[in-house]
Amino acid sequence: MDKLKVGVVGAGRIGKVHCEALCSRVPDAEVVAVTDPRREEAEKLASRFGIPAVSKNFEELIQTEEIRAVVICSPTDTHRAYVEAAARAGKHIFCEKPLDHEPAVIRHLIEEVERNGVKLMVGYNRRFDPEFRQARLMVASGEVGDIHIVRITSRDPEPPPFDYIKVSGGLFLDMAIHDFDMARFITGAEVVEVFARGAVLVDDRIGEAGDIDTAVVSLAFDNGALGTIDDSRKAAYGYDQRLEVFGSEGMVRVENRLHNQNRLYNSGGIHKALPMDFFMDRYAEAYAIEMSAFVKSVIDDSEVLVTAEDGLRSIEIGLAARKSWLENRPVKIEEIRG
Amino acid sequence: MDKLKVGVVGAGRIGKVHCEALCSRVPDAEVVAVTDPRREEAEKLASRFGIPAVSKNFEELIQTEEIRAVVICSPTDTHRAYVEAAARAGKHIFCEKPLDHEPAVIRHLIEEVERNGVKLMVGYNRRFDPEFRQARLMVASGEVGDIHIVRITSRDPEPPPFDYIKVSGGLFLDMAIHDFDMARFITGAEVVEVFARGAVLVDDRIGEAGDIDTAVVSLAFDNGALGTIDDSRKAAYGYDQRLEVFGSEGMVRVENRLHNQNRLYNSGGIHKALPMDFFMDRYAEAYAIEMSAFVKSVIDDSEVLVTAEDGLRSIEIGLAARKSWLENRPVKIEEIRG
Amino acid sequence: MDKLKVGVVGAGRIGKVHCEALCSRVPDAEVVAVTDPRREEAEKLASRFGIPAVSKNFEELIQTEEIRAVVICSPTDTHRAYVEAAARAGKHIFCEKPLDHEPAVIRHLIEEVERNGVKLMVGYNRRFDPEFRQARLMVASGEVGDIHIVRITSRDPEPPPFDYIKVSGGLFLDMAIHDFDMARFITGAEVVEVFARGAVLVDDRIGEAGDIDTAVVSLAFDNGALGTIDDSRKAAYGYDQRLEVFGSEGMVRVENRLHNQNRLYNSGGIHKALPMDFFMDRYAEAYAIEMSAFVKSVIDDSEVLVTAEDGLRSIEIGLAARKSWLENRPVKIEEIRG
Amino acid sequence: MDKLKVGVVGAGRIGKVHCEALCSRVPDAEVVAVTDPRREEAEKLASRFGIPAVSKNFEELIQTEEIRAVVICSPTDTHRAYVEAAARAGKHIFCEKPLDHEPAVIRHLIEEVERNGVKLMVGYNRRFDPEFRQARLMVASGEVGDIHIVRITSRDPEPPPFDYIKVSGGLFLDMAIHDFDMARFITGAEVVEVFARGAVLVDDRIGEAGDIDTAVVSLAFDNGALGTIDDSRKAAYGYDQRLEVFGSEGMVRVENRLHNQNRLYNSGGIHKALPMDFFMDRYAEAYAIEMSAFVKSVIDDSEVLVTAEDGLRSIEIGLAARKSWLENRPVKIEEIRG
Repeated sequence: MDKLKVGVVGAGRIGKVHCEALCSRVPDAEVVAVTDPRREEAEKLASRFGIPAVSKNFEELIQTEEIRAVVICSPTDTHRAYVEAAARAGKHIFCEKPLDHEPAVIRHLIEEVERNGVKLMVGYNRRFDPEFRQARLMVASGEVGDIHIVRITSRDPEPPPFDYIKVSGGLFLDMAIHDFDMARFITGAEVVEVFARGAVLVDDRIGEAGDIDTAVVSLAFDNGALGTIDDSRKAAYGYDQRLEVFGSEGMVRVENRLHNQNRLYNSGGIHKALPMDFFMDRYAEAYAIEMSAFVKSVIDDSEVLVTAEDGLRSIEIGLAARKSWLENRPVKIEEIRG
Repeated sequence: MDKLKVGVVGAGRIGKVHCEALCSRVPDAEVVAVTDPRREEAEKLASRFGIPAVSKNFEELIQTEEIRAVVICSPTDTHRAYVEAAARAGKHIFCEKPLDHEPAVIRHLIEEVERNGVKLMVGYNRRFDPEFRQARLMVASGEVGDIHIVRITSRDPEPPPFDYIKVSGGLFLDMAIHDFDMARFITGAEVVEVFARGAVLVDDRIGEAGDIDTAVVSLAFDNGALGTIDDSRKAAYGYDQRLEVFGSEGMVRVENRLHNQNRLYNSGGIHKALPMDFFMDRYAEAYAIEMSAFVKSVIDDSEVLVTAEDGLRSIEIGLAARKSWLENRPVKIEEIRG
Repeated sequence: MDKLKVGVVGAGRIGKVHCEALCSRVPDAEVVAVTDPRREEAEKLASRFGIPAVSKNFEELIQTEEIRAVVICSPTDTHRAYVEAAARAGKHIFCEKPLDHEPAVIRHLIEEVERNGVKLMVGYNRRFDPEFRQARLMVASGEVGDIHIVRITSRDPEPPPFDYIKVSGGLFLDMAIHDFDMARFITGAEVVEVFARGAVLVDDRIGEAGDIDTAVVSLAFDNGALGTIDDSRKAAYGYDQRLEVFGSEGMVRVENRLHNQNRLYNSGGIHKALPMDFFMDRYAEAYAIEMSAFVKSVIDDSEVLVTAEDGLRSIEIGLAARKSWLENRPVKIEEIRG
Repeated sequence: MDKLKVGVVGAGRIGKVHCEALCSRVPDAEVVAVTDPRREEAEKLASRFGIPAVSKNFEELIQTEEIRAVVICSPTDTHRAYVEAAARAGKHIFCEKPLDHEPAVIRHLIEEVERNGVKLMVGYNRRFDPEFRQARLMVASGEVGDIHIVRITSRDPEPPPFDYIKVSGGLFLDMAIHDFDMARFITGAEVVEVFARGAVLVDDRIGEAGDIDTAVVSLAFDNGALGTIDDSRKAAYGYDQRLEVFGSEGMVRVENRLHNQNRLYNSGGIHKALPMDFFMDRYAEAYAIEMSAFVKSVIDDSEVLVTAEDGLRSIEIGLAARKSWLENRPVKIEEIRG
């Protein structure tokens, strides 16, 4: 069988991650071109992974006949134009999250993609983490019974650069959006109402930039379950990614992955290593499985595992959370949907 | 030194627990009388623990000269009258939680007690659990730095009898009130605003009784920290009592106590025992330390460790949570205080 | 039913432990007399636990008509005489381990006891620890299948005083003897051959006293299973008492009891408390259950749970281990039995 | 820099593992030829990893000019001839363990290799496992102080095929040899005496083949430390690979890697997944790091991390263990060395 020929758009941090996955862990794919406005970055990537061509720009890449799919890793404000153009050129699309911060734009992209008969998968990598995935399987197979309470904890090791924070859309759209997607994924249910509190406890400059660095979000789901999410931009002990689903028959818990499982016993206590503190280490496997899944869905012509609709829903929850925080009241998702 | 002579009021479940603690684990105390409207229960207790007298009723017990302190384990609706009478009789008082469901009544009792120069301690047993206490020590000594997020989980093994639910004051005043007290205890901060969601997921009859069995509560503290509490009337795996305090320097976690720490490895996985599922086992040590602390504060004439003011505060939070749930909006504690 | 009237012989450390258990945790027993050559120690004990009489000496105590059972907590070199005298006086006997270091003496005591129709239980407290006991139940009920390998780890927080080491009988008879008893208890099988290595790694003075402080013992059981025990007189992290039984169907592991289960996460790692480091804390429950079991076997006239035969067997294994270490060769138990 | 051109000898299970590591995880290496008597296996491997040439036989491969290093994954009885020939052809050599079962042969190969100025690294993969390696770093940096006791547990999920058992050299030379190497690696000390017990508890046919399936080995080290190893050919719960090093300052423990860290709580208990049960999953990272280390030592002209001398020492311990088991007595390593 022929390999799926892929073009990669964006040679930044996440572009590298996806290239590495596609080149060394997805035997059915072949990256044939890469592009980035910072041409030298694109060239470094091409040389490192043996990618034959560096396209001058997105337009050139998209015109490459043999390319059947593009992996879009460029900044959020380019997603709309690139997804549109790729769809019109008949290319299947993997696009990093979020598709866009505007629901109307996402709805428009959903239509474009449908009209052009191409696939569009959105990059919510955590869904592909083996442990979250296994937890989802347990929940879906009824091991915890009916879902009563979902708890998600998400804490970064360090805040992002302040420049980034300003354009990030804020904690609810940039960071918590992963948790909103996880809340939907792990339960298989839809969020109907959100109440969000925010605080600036980590760094005053985040507050000065109009954002928050700490949040607690209370969720109501359409199946009657309740949820709570807590987020922080900084945990002294690393990257904290936990989850539990509690139901009528029991509970499944996902705990952090540690650097190693060794234990040291000494006169001061019993000590274990810290959680993995870099998202690319923590989610290395998830990224590889994500790319495999995208490639497989194109080759098999099967449904993508994270749809643009999924991308829309998490944005809606994020906007509801932001509104809730600003107005200090519970906000229904349908308010956002208008 | 003479032992502190104590009278116990109420020979029900919690009366037995306190008698046992006083008789076999608090060498400085001596239970000299017990009373209960169900006289045979009082007699059983007296015979089991070698208590010399069974008083006909509360009034008789309170007139026993040698009694310097009473331990009130009777139903909530008797607390007001008994505390008042005991205070006027110059007896020091330990009263089970809640003192009353009405803040005005509690304020009145605080005045009575002050006027009569007696001590009043309220029975929030979890504060005396060695692990919660040790966690509080870590927080108080700065091991987690400034507090950012508090998470409390509280799930019972089974709902109480429906008859009890009807008079219980509802989940927020009966069950979550322990968590509200814990939130204050563990942080050393005051709750200023509450948003509560409730659901009936465990048993429809609880809903028919006008109550809920599942709740998620979002808290704001006066020191800027955020909190989240989740409660359920039924956990398939037993009694779930966990807590974590996350701050600028780290996190402390209290996990469940299991029946035993043994692990069984077989072809089906690695298995551990369930959490202790009866509150009297789970908190056996806490109850004994609580009684010791009360007796010590009387003997040493020192401040009680859980004041009537503490009892008032948790009731206020409980009332705010109920109002929040009924009106689906965040409620400030000062609204309740009026 | 009348309580079993008990006399306690020896008011030292272990005498106190047993008195406390008998007086506050074994409702069916009543300590009516205590004796100790250091009379003031006996008096302190009597006053603390409300024991009515302090006997002048063992002979006086043994002549107390109402005493039906004695609990012998005096030094090992007195056991022979006291057990003999108690048996002849028709008293049931609980005697601390070891009965004696000489198998012939133990065999003689077994005969005395049988001749006089009294019970004799030996104090191997670890058998009554809830976690070891639960592990034994799992093994006995076939949860691990046929036993293949047993591993026991036993490490003290600190070596005993050197004066004690000199009269202790050495590490194999003083300390490892608990592990030899545990090996028999947990498997329900008999040790047939021992190979023991010893080393002086903790403190040279232990070597100068002719003893060792570190040992690894390899065992062969009569059911074909193999075993390994490791002992140390000093673990920097406290009292280390672990065990695992591995069999055809799986494995059960007993881990240490920690001071508490809390976890602290900070920039240095994830930290837990140390194992309990004092045997009286670690085995507090075990001692109480042990006394209950002795009292129950006397009252019910049922078999004691740790027989003099058990005491004999662990001594034989200890002597074989010592011989093996001295001669650097495997030693069969039957060699010792002669 | 030019990549190191490598030839792979043997396209069986372990040959595939090393090819995969070399081709996708060691960017500095390039596999340019592979050979195997079962030509179709070699061709499959070549096609799967894009290896340009399939050599007719070892001799042809060794004559390939551009090949600077060979990775020998053929059966043990070919190692001698291949290592010799490769050394004479001036190729650097990685050879799977064991080099040979005969110390004299290994000594001869050490000379050959030295004479020809090539490197020879032996495949003790566990040394490269991140957790064992991290434990070694802790021990080497003094975190546990002076070493007192080492415990190693090694249990396979299933016995190998009986045909293999017959030619394997027996449990001590085939399986426990990994543990003997680990004992040296983790302590940095030399084993001086061994006492080994063996039993046939898993499968009688193993006994009929003259081998054992269960063993407990007691070790004495040249630094005075003691050790114990237990091995089984079959653990119902998977692949059990644990270790602990206990010393004057504390203890480091390496526990099993589980399939995932999730926990399920239900009415039957708290459940975790099994340990990884296939050595290629369990040690996937170790194999990749091992190949990297070999390639790096050739490119940098630095000392290999597992020398032929290391291979010799573990064989000597294995032979001493076998002799000890057969003669039921402790055997000194120098007896074997003669």
